[in-house]
Amino acid sequence: MGDVQQLKSWEDRASSARARRDAGLAKVEPKLEGIPDVLPLSSQDLPKSILTSREIEITEKYSVTELLKILRERKISVEEVTRAFLRRAALAQVATNCLTELLWDEAITRAKHLDSLPEPKGAFFGLPISTKEHHGMIGDNVTTTASFITWVDKDHGSNLLYDILYNEGCVFFARTTQPQTIMHLETSSNVYGRTVNPYNRDLTPGGSSGGESALVGIRGSLLGVGGDIGGSVRCPSAHVGIYGFKPTAKRISVFGQRAPMAGKETILSTPGPMTVDRDALELFMKVAIAAEPWRIDPSLTAKEWKPYHFTKPLKIAVQWWDGVVQLHPPMRRALEEVVAACRKAGFEVVDWNCETLGHDEAWNIISGLYWPDGGEEVLGLMKETGEPVLPLTKFIIEEQPSVKNMTVHELWDLCARRDAYRARYAKAWTDTAANGEREVDVILCPPSFGAAAPHEQSRYWGYTSQWNLLDYPAVVFPVTTVDPTKDLQDPNYVPKNDQDRFVYEMYSPDKYINAPVSLQIVGRRQYDEKVLAALVEIERAMGRS
Amino acid sequence: MGDVQQLKSWEDRASSARARRDAGLAKVEPKLEGIPDVLPLSSQDLPKSILTSREIEITEKYSVTELLKILRERKISVEEVTRAFLRRAALAQVATNCLTELLWDEAITRAKHLDSLPEPKGAFFGLPISTKEHHGMIGDNVTTTASFITWVDKDHGSNLLYDILYNEGCVFFARTTQPQTIMHLETSSNVYGRTVNPYNRDLTPGGSSGGESALVGIRGSLLGVGGDIGGSVRCPSAHVGIYGFKPTAKRISVFGQRAPMAGKETILSTPGPMTVDRDALELFMKVAIAAEPWRIDPSLTAKEWKPYHFTKPLKIAVQWWDGVVQLHPPMRRALEEVVAACRKAGFEVVDWNCETLGHDEAWNIISGLYWPDGGEEVLGLMKETGEPVLPLTKFIIEEQPSVKNMTVHELWDLCARRDAYRARYAKAWTDTAANGEREVDVILCPPSFGAAAPHEQSRYWGYTSQWNLLDYPAVVFPVTTVDPTKDLQDPNYVPKNDQDRFVYEMYSPDKYINAPVSLQIVGRRQYDEKVLAALVEIERAMGRS
Repeated sequence: MGDVQQLKSWEDRASSARARRDAGLAKVEPKLEGIPDVLPLSSQDLPKSILTSREIEITEKYSVTELLKILRERKISVEEVTRAFLRRAALAQVATNCLTELLWDEAITRAKHLDSLPEPKGAFFGLPISTKEHHGMIGDNVTTTASFITWVDKDHGSNLLYDILYNEGCVFFARTTQPQTIMHLETSSNVYGRTVNPYNRDLTPGGSSGGESALVGIRGSLLGVGGDIGGSVRCPSAHVGIYGFKPTAKRISVFGQRAPMAGKETILSTPGPMTVDRDALELFMKVAIAAEPWRIDPSLTAKEWKPYHFTKPLKIAVQWWDGVVQLHPPMRRALEEVVAACRKAGFEVVDWNCETLGHDEAWNIISGLYWPDGGEEVLGLMKETGEPVLPLTKFIIEEQPSVKNMTVHELWDLCARRDAYRARYAKAWTDTAANGEREVDVILCPPSFGAAAPHEQSRYWGYTSQWNLLDYPAVVFPVTTVDPTKDLQDPNYVPKNDQDRFVYEMYSPDKYINAPVSLQIVGRRQYDEKVLAALVEIERAMGRS
Repeated sequence: MGDVQQLKSWEDRASSARARRDAGLAKVEPKLEGIPDVLPLSSQDLPKSILTSREIEITEKYSVTELLKILRERKISVEEVTRAFLRRAALAQVATNCLTELLWDEAITRAKHLDSLPEPKGAFFGLPISTKEHHGMIGDNVTTTASFITWVDKDHGSNLLYDILYNEGCVFFARTTQPQTIMHLETSSNVYGRTVNPYNRDLTPGGSSGGESALVGIRGSLLGVGGDIGGSVRCPSAHVGIYGFKPTAKRISVFGQRAPMAGKETILSTPGPMTVDRDALELFMKVAIAAEPWRIDPSLTAKEWKPYHFTKPLKIAVQWWDGVVQLHPPMRRALEEVVAACRKAGFEVVDWNCETLGHDEAWNIISGLYWPDGGEEVLGLMKETGEPVLPLTKFIIEEQPSVKNMTVHELWDLCARRDAYRARYAKAWTDTAANGEREVDVILCPPSFGAAAPHEQSRYWGYTSQWNLLDYPAVVFPVTTVDPTKDLQDPNYVPKNDQDRFVYEMYSPDKYINAPVSLQIVGRRQYDEKVLAALVEIERAMGRS
């Protein structure tokens, strides 16, 4: 970067990043034709009027595992698959503003290479995989902003996880947006603007992996990689009705990602898969761990992936609410429907009474631990270019009473509180087996107070961040969509506190047209395999295959 | 604690702690008779002139596993075993000053209870186990000083690990000394004074688990529990020729221990077994982990203990020195002898060239990470009573240029340096498998520059702390003793730096009469089982069973 670059305004720097993105999009061939002047509320019907029927077939007919099968059998070329997803991703960009980069040339070159191999090789042979921008990318001339204007055009490389996926034969083809600081449950930045929900553009696709969710939510990708430190895989997955998994931290690696606050270890983020296909979650984990990444990133847990199989009917604990913020009607209904199915399937169902477990205290702890320097470093990064501090950045840094620039002793005190809280929660779980009863297998709970929120309203993290504080593995899965005839607001509800009032007043059925509603399954720390096995059981109880 | 207590001088408070210890020792029955007025240099011959022949038989004839066998078969009563070890421990106290408390009444009551059970129960049924004081203890009226005068008479309880051992039927019978701040590689405090080496009272038993090593080193206990954050299990074990194992952190729990700096997570300590018997190491680990302690302490790694078995001859890398401080002649000889045995047994032996791996940089990092507050908290604890700051405390806090009271950003920087260092080292290990060669299984290395040092000379931690920074599992095992006829000082050696000169000048054979010399086996992080399996292979190569 020369001096000229340094002197650019933040707006100019943002334009240069978008120009780079647009240059990739301009390569799309054939061009996208027939895009309406005014985009519809839902983007779900756009593809079939703009893509070819063959592209629709390739991108809609198969699950991840089915697509991998025909790729491996060479019933379809990698290039044809790649081109179809490239064009669909380009359309997703038009519809939702989800991309930071379309890797047109790189992906097609890679696809041709894979097609030229004498034998298909690797667990992800030929599969297009999309990725969250700040993770980095394989290739020359990679730059990564991590949504900071000051990092526009900053050189970067790949990361350990993507190296593994690449070695398994995937095709990286699209990089996706995340919000400023990568710490909103929405997706808006000064670099790329706002990403919207592919089911309803007045709603957020969630965040921080909201570029991924918008893209996968319109099948512009069947499998993407997000990252989660407060809900950033699960919230966006839930908001678009796809599957998203946050494993226990340190099972898969963040090694090589670009993010601020390097060296912070109070709360750890983890990558996680986001996908249209339940089975792809476990495949992803299996492949990522089979590579023994701890030989490169020694901070990882050296433990093989060992699929779990239930031998008895599940015992699930249902979190009807978190003791702080009440659920919106559609989320409540989703929970009731799935619980009814679980009971019918013979599962043992008990309540998970959070009121005594202090989920508000958990938020006070984790929000402080996100920013032990009071946000000084990230606010400093924004100050470097004068880019505006967005409202949800202010919310998560400046409006949290717990956030301050700590002394080492204050930091230790907060970490000790965190550890005590974790121990208390572990005891509560272990105590479900008191009196000779069976221990609860998993908690079934909402991934949010409701469906995707209208923009700028994602100011309550508790339904996801709780499990980051505890470092419990958690998966989200689609259940239903908002139904205005069923999901009426209760006019008589009396909110219990300010947060509850804010959330209550946010809801009215008409705002949430088409919005997917998802649920979350949570396991004890490090019981990742069990969580995915429970998902299979619960979906079967719901009548899915 | 009333006001009177508060007003006591630090010397009075120390006296009260020692009076408590002496009250336990006064219960010993029959009294110890025949203790010489002037204690001999080595304490090793004392027991046979003071204990009964039956006590000698019980405490000397059996390995841990053999003793457990006859206890389980009820060929001997728990009470008889317990009384024998209580008396031998009392003698160890006279000889080495290793105890903070002899649990005479508690142990005998426990033993009688175990004898009264219709069936023996538990993996440690009837085995007397000794413990490091600051860990705490099962029972009523437990107090723990953690070697701080200000904590004399401070109430305490048990810890998760000891609860597990107790559930497995052990008898806790003796609590042992550790140094001021629990951060010397020797064992001296204002509470209990200095602990000496049972082979040579002019030498240290090492530290910080030096009470344990002195006790186990004279078979006043066959199995004890220490803790290690810089060498505190391995250094003392090495200095008295017993087995000591530092597992990867978070395989066994520190939950419930008393120590300063709660909430610090930059470098983690771990408990570890110290024992006369190699097989007891693996038994200890197996039992501690089989209890699934992560259900109580969720910070632990949830991973079963899976004994490792080599199917090919070992490939070992030999660390001939650490690139900073040269070995004393007996340590060099021990290494040469074991390497010769390994070669003879058909192992593949390569060099571990540390010069390029910056072990001095590792020390700079870890010494800073020990005290991110510049030592403020622990120095404050000492100031509360005015107890003197001992020289080795000054060494490890005030004389380390890396130690300072850090801002959060300085802390992150140092943690990032730590993580980068760990990644670099992991890569070096992985790279031993480059070019189609086999990867190194374990590193064989010294646990110190030499045998046990004369008092107050333990100012170089690099041979143990290196593996704490990396969090690699490491075991020490006895090899030989100093032989003045073989282990001559090299008069022509030119020290490479100040630390090297200090260590070089410390050595002359006459200072080290009788001193055991031990070696260390180190594995990759989390390959704990492999390290213990390698110990078996290497001892077999040495002609041991």
